Amino acid sequence: MKSRDLTYRAFAPASIGNVGVGFDVLGLALEGVGDTVELTLNSGTREILIESIFTENKIPADPKQNTATAALLAMQKDLNLSYGFRVRIHKGIPLGSGMGGSAASAVAAVVAAAGIFRRLKSRVQNPIPMEQLFTYALEGERIAAGSAHPDNVAPSLYGGLTLSSSQFSTSLAKSVFHISIPSGIVCVLVHPDVQVETKQARKILRPEISLKSYVEQSSLLAGFVLGCMTSNFGLISASLRDQIIEPQREHLIPAFQDVKNAAMAIPGCLGFSISGSGPSVFALAKSRTAGQKIAQEIQKRFKIAGVTSTAYISRLPAPGARGFKGEK
Amino acid sequence: MKSRDLTYRAFAPASIGNVGVGFDVLGLALEGVGDTVELTLNSGTREILIESIFTENKIPADPKQNTATAALLAMQKDLNLSYGFRVRIHKGIPLGSGMGGSAASAVAAVVAAAGIFRRLKSRVQNPIPMEQLFTYALEGERIAAGSAHPDNVAPSLYGGLTLSSSQFSTSLAKSVFHISIPSGIVCVLVHPDVQVETKQARKILRPEISLKSYVEQSSLLAGFVLGCMTSNFGLISASLRDQIIEPQREHLIPAFQDVKNAAMAIPGCLGFSISGSGPSVFALAKSRTAGQKIAQEIQKRFKIAGVTSTAYISRLPAPGARGFKGEK
Repeated sequence: MKSRDLTYRAFAPASIGNVGVGFDVLGLALEGVGDTVELTLNSGTREILIESIFTENKIPADPKQNTATAALLAMQKDLNLSYGFRVRIHKGIPLGSGMGGSAASAVAAVVAAAGIFRRLKSRVQNPIPMEQLFTYALEGERIAAGSAHPDNVAPSLYGGLTLSSSQFSTSLAKSVFHISIPSGIVCVLVHPDVQVETKQARKILRPEISLKSYVEQSSLLAGFVLGCMTSNFGLISASLRDQIIEPQREHLIPAFQDVKNAAMAIPGCLGFSISGSGPSVFALAKSRTAGQKIAQEIQKRFKIAGVTSTAYISRLPAPGARGFKGEK
Repeated sequence: MKSRDLTYRAFAPASIGNVGVGFDVLGLALEGVGDTVELTLNSGTREILIESIFTENKIPADPKQNTATAALLAMQKDLNLSYGFRVRIHKGIPLGSGMGGSAASAVAAVVAAAGIFRRLKSRVQNPIPMEQLFTYALEGERIAAGSAHPDNVAPSLYGGLTLSSSQFSTSLAKSVFHISIPSGIVCVLVHPDVQVETKQARKILRPEISLKSYVEQSSLLAGFVLGCMTSNFGLISASLRDQIIEPQREHLIPAFQDVKNAAMAIPGCLGFSISGSGPSVFALAKSRTAGQKIAQEIQKRFKIAGVTSTAYISRLPAPGARGFKGEK
């Protein structure tokens, strides 16, 4: 095998930013849906070239505007790599869906690159620390979202439910913590076929909130974390609510209140809110059976509103990104 | 023994409301300092009479204005008791100190009453559920604070570190959850000899905060809860900060920044903030040795500012209220 043919592939899952209750700080990995990035070593040049992007949507083909290649460029620069990559991206996550697609592409790219380093036996530290991969992926995300919010990159890379905040450390890489989830919980995500721009969805938010709202919402976040850590379904259910952001964004989503009421009425539904900045919505459920009923009900309500949708049901906690050998 | 001589005594600990990072929702019980309430059954009458209040400060002697008797009145009414109590209050907690004194008196009173019920073999449910005692004590607190904030009543009754919020349930009694604390942590509380009125300290707070502040502070609260649950000292230390309330209240406390900087500079100090609405300040420390050094340093700085102070050092988690036989 010549090193210029060295190919490695990685999958990174979709994720739910905010998880309703924790605006900008919580993230939850999904199961089975995500982006795959395949890299081939470009040993003769430092060029990072997108060879193909498989997706139903149009996404930028300029490497600097694509999160996968932007993350690779950040990595190449930081590690002073003498080589480049040929990049093939398989977008399993619809663009502008609120499912963390830009983060997943960036994460898959850096995890695939880490696989190449391993097989190259390169001078790069092997295996390259996850925290370092996290930093490069965040650089990719910065391009798409305008700022480096880790609430999708963290769960996509590490899996599970994550709490991340720039408040925890001056190093973003040390700012991510894992929250355990009671086994048996299922996540339902439904993507209605409309688009929401993250940057736009952020602009509509009021810059101030009342102290009262702050106290209420922060107690819900603390309750959700505590409920997850202690497997207290009652507390999870009481806490999984967004009183600050959801009311300001719900108009971006067709028939939102109708969909929400229908989902919450299903026995076993623990909570319902917007995934990231939407338009996808999600619910947590006590069981797969409840999750399936919730998914059906949500899709039915979207259909009544004239919107087609796609549903994803994930067991939790879902694993993070993983690499595969991929030489041809 | 005639039932009219039936006497029971209970101790309820002081507590730290807010615990810095969790305004209006966190509470932490202290060890060894608190209020003691002794009740004697008044079998011939429904009168609730304060016989004595031992304290260095002046506190209200009208039963309706005292939290201990206000809690007993709420209990008497709800349980439709045919008898009253003679009440002796030993205030171990200075008034207006930010140490949860009004909550402790109310809690001690209802726990003492529960002891009387037990020994009376009364028709009241025996033992009376803790949740019910909590509700009565909260009624007492409502009189002192103007509203029923459970962030002192909960830790004083149950002990340990508590998360409480009206958001968790329409029943306040079901709104309290326990957060475990890593063993070995020590709490230092120092009470400078100046008074702050809770109602006044609340009035100075700005009614709005920025969305950015909300995100930052809510992540700190979530991080603190997660750090405590996972015994992660690094995360506790990174999270135990109040960026919203402390800057608005610090001027109520003499030499606050000087005291804080001195405390935070001691190795093993995990965080420092205002206890409740002040003027007491507290720090968490990794060990008793560190705690003692922090207490000395804080007292030294207050002294330089011309203020005498009292220090309390508690092992955590501290137990909640407890009753004792008290007949003479």
